Amino acid sequence: MRFMTTPDNASGTPETPAETAADAAPAPTGIAAQDWAQAATDPQYRAAVVDLLGALAYGELAAFERLAEDAKLAPTLLDKSELAKMASAEFHHFEQIRDRLTEIGADAAQAMEPFVAALDGFHKQTAPSDWLEGLVKAYVGDSIASDFYREVAARLDADTRQLVLAVLDDTGHASFAIEKVRAAIDAEPRVGGRLALWARRLMGEALSQSQRVVADRDALSMMLVGGVADGFDLAEVGRMFSRITEAHTKRMAALGLAA
Amino acid sequence: MRFMTTPDNASGTPETPAETAADAAPAPTGIAAQDWAQAATDPQYRAAVVDLLGALAYGELAAFERLAEDAKLAPTLLDKSELAKMASAEFHHFEQIRDRLTEIGADAAQAMEPFVAALDGFHKQTAPSDWLEGLVKAYVGDSIASDFYREVAARLDADTRQLVLAVLDDTGHASFAIEKVRAAIDAEPRVGGRLALWARRLMGEALSQSQRVVADRDALSMMLVGGVADGFDLAEVGRMFSRITEAHTKRMAALGLAA
Repeated sequence: MRFMTTPDNASGTPETPAETAADAAPAPTGIAAQDWAQAATDPQYRAAVVDLLGALAYGELAAFERLAEDAKLAPTLLDKSELAKMASAEFHHFEQIRDRLTEIGADAAQAMEPFVAALDGFHKQTAPSDWLEGLVKAYVGDSIASDFYREVAARLDADTRQLVLAVLDDTGHASFAIEKVRAAIDAEPRVGGRLALWARRLMGEALSQSQRVVADRDALSMMLVGGVADGFDLAEVGRMFSRITEAHTKRMAALGLAA
Repeated sequence: MRFMTTPDNASGTPETPAETAADAAPAPTGIAAQDWAQAATDPQYRAAVVDLLGALAYGELAAFERLAEDAKLAPTLLDKSELAKMASAEFHHFEQIRDRLTEIGADAAQAMEPFVAALDGFHKQTAPSDWLEGLVKAYVGDSIASDFYREVAARLDADTRQLVLAVLDDTGHASFAIEKVRAAIDAEPRVGGRLALWARRLMGEALSQSQRVVADRDALSMMLVGGVADGFDLAEVGRMFSRITEAHTKRMAALGLAA
């Protein structure tokens, strides 16, 4: 296993597809061998999972709301329906995660609350000004969510992991966005420069809001850095962000958006 | 069978539940005994069904968009998720109807286009100014849609009817809205007066936009009045609107919103 800690120099030099963020994720930790009933006996782990599910749930609900909003920018009815389809898929993810929160005895609204400011802040700072920006945002958001779910799955007990992987499995509705963006750049190459800056801004906002969350939520952060079960490793959270950033940069390059 | 052509005098005198818009709908006509392949050999019937499905498809897509928008008015995250759930259900109705249009060889976007102005006009004229207005609109919209689907089902060939009934069967996500509205009126009775006026305005706009559609779309209108298969009956479309209005008035009265 190899950690990619230098995302910047990877954008111009695509490597083999095997070396993606997913494959570079750390091997399952001790907690991964446990089920929820076992793992939840540790109150700190339990709090971390409630935090994680709260963040994911509100992330999905906010994504629903924003995709539905951005669908208004669509130039045709069928384009609109494609974004509406993604929005609807996000809503169903929200439902799954909310139901799981209820199942483990947590109050879903209360679990989501700590993440409202950061996620609303992200969306407020990144309201697309046109349809192409909306498409790039849909694609980038979908991809970062996939990467994050995949990263975090390895750190979870078997039951929670199963939920996260189920949601992940239903992600990837954004492929239509790639084609549209590619076609727009082919038709007018200077559009690429503008969208490259936009994609960079999206990632910058996502990272800055994530860091805000990490700073605020101790239990969640410790789990993300592998702290709860396996001893602290603060450098690991940085590496996780790096892997996600690098995967993003590669995807943008593949799309013709070298940042 | 009895036609209720005087909706106004029914609001204060609830009748037996059996006498709803659904039961007062006309008996299936000759076309109801045919399947799509048979019925569609009549080009006027085929055009009418494409129109109908186009109107329903865009109606669902526009409802999705507006419910997602109105979800922003929700006072709590769980209230927001309830409206998002309705929005998502409308999107799935849209998908079913769009797929059917494709299946019968029609261009879905083209079929929807003639109804965009009327439906967008309706939503533009009826943007709720607060959460309670949003809830009343969700409930009224859902109910009117149910009534209309049920009315129109009787006029369709077996295959199209099956689709319309399947969508109808999945309608009725608005019951949460009733409880919330009732509780708000109990807590502050004068809210009822404002919401009663609001519900009246919703129905007025719905009717005026429907009449615009009926005036524009000959084939659709003729089917709605039973014209295609069974000879013209222009009075029947008026009676259909009356039945739907009456059912609406009764529902509002039951909700404590005597208009």
